[in-house]
Amino acid sequence: MTYLASEIAEQPDVIGHLLTEQADNARKIGAAIRDFNPAFVTIAARGTSDNAGRYAQYLFGIQAGLSVGLSAPSIHTIYGKQTNLSRALVLGISQSGQSEDVRQVVADAREQGALTVCITNNPGSPLAEAAHYHLPLGAGEEKSVAATKTYTAQLTAVAMLVAALVDQPELHAELSKLPDYLRQTLALSDGIAGWTERYRYMERLVTIGRGYNYCTAFEISLKIKELCYVVGQ
Amino acid sequence: MTYLASEIAEQPDVIGHLLTEQADNARKIGAAIRDFNPAFVTIAARGTSDNAGRYAQYLFGIQAGLSVGLSAPSIHTIYGKQTNLSRALVLGISQSGQSEDVRQVVADAREQGALTVCITNNPGSPLAEAAHYHLPLGAGEEKSVAATKTYTAQLTAVAMLVAALVDQPELHAELSKLPDYLRQTLALSDGIAGWTERYRYMERLVTIGRGYNYCTAFEISLKIKELCYVVGQ
Repeated sequence: MTYLASEIAEQPDVIGHLLTEQADNARKIGAAIRDFNPAFVTIAARGTSDNAGRYAQYLFGIQAGLSVGLSAPSIHTIYGKQTNLSRALVLGISQSGQSEDVRQVVADAREQGALTVCITNNPGSPLAEAAHYHLPLGAGEEKSVAATKTYTAQLTAVAMLVAALVDQPELHAELSKLPDYLRQTLALSDGIAGWTERYRYMERLVTIGRGYNYCTAFEISLKIKELCYVVGQ
Repeated sequence: MTYLASEIAEQPDVIGHLLTEQADNARKIGAAIRDFNPAFVTIAARGTSDNAGRYAQYLFGIQAGLSVGLSAPSIHTIYGKQTNLSRALVLGISQSGQSEDVRQVVADAREQGALTVCITNNPGSPLAEAAHYHLPLGAGEEKSVAATKTYTAQLTAVAMLVAALVDQPELHAELSKLPDYLRQTLALSDGIAGWTERYRYMERLVTIGRGYNYCTAFEISLKIKELCYVVGQ
């Protein structure tokens, strides 16, 4: 079994563990966001984590009424400027927690008075230490270059934060079903392998999605590029 | 001469006209933005106009220290929700001014108390009427499906607003040079035609850009898709 396949198979346990272990921490962060009452949200992230940020845009927007923008880290790192983030919730997302540009946006924002929260898979990382609050994914080491379990764990972490922020029982109840949904989906894998045969010689693909699925349309495209060397968009 | 070629050739005049005719209006809007003192900026736009929004993200960020996010209109139109835009400058950009989803974001924001500004090429359009302030491009009718003169006019309009907002003489001075720069660039057209010959049978392309040019990397990719049917990304 490849690292990729085994990490995909770990998802129900990873997500189940995250939901249980980080429930209190998410509640604490949710309360801190309510207290801070941000004027808007800025996401600092790259690649797969940036796609999780796209999910955050819809989830914070629809469930919590917060306007979310994806930051342009080069404003900080290349142009040496900062935007006014003093009234913002700044959410840094990085699997490794090692992205220097993401860390800098979070550190600059914190110095300005922003409320800073980060989601990483590495509690000892520079990003985890730069923010006021850290929600660790606890997904275990990801050996495959293509992120799988950490992407779905990031989406879950974002959903946990929003559920804690708005504190609606039905959101918590829906979240608790995730590990089962993941198991049911993974049980379809053999059938899916059959359906995908016809795409063996595909040279291009287009992924389409909107709203809550917009992020995953981007992520599927990225995954196909990384793993099949097919141009997706 | 195709509509496309003639509209490309019109750019120095269109931009020169815009800079002259709309200078007072831009100053008025810039003063209104200073008075309103927005906590952040949200852009509502689609396609080419969304790319102009990417330029606005860097320009407002670097020159005026304002955090800019691109809105997700489907939050308003599909999910029937609104994010809190009461402290935002909401900038709607649309060549035609007819995009119903962009108009709705602007109208919702205005009702919430946001400062709303729009940039269109059609003063009688629904979007132009929905916003507090309108900066008309005055680019004349655009007959080609591929936007050219209206894209560069949108970038210019964004730059005029930022120059008026921060009111720095060197920005105004730089802007006034634009028509000449455009003439110099258009004078290179014959040479460029020679350089591009080798790409006649290109099947794919990748455009790369960052910072102020990030928007135009997206726009080049869109233009090549529209005009050459080549997958760009």
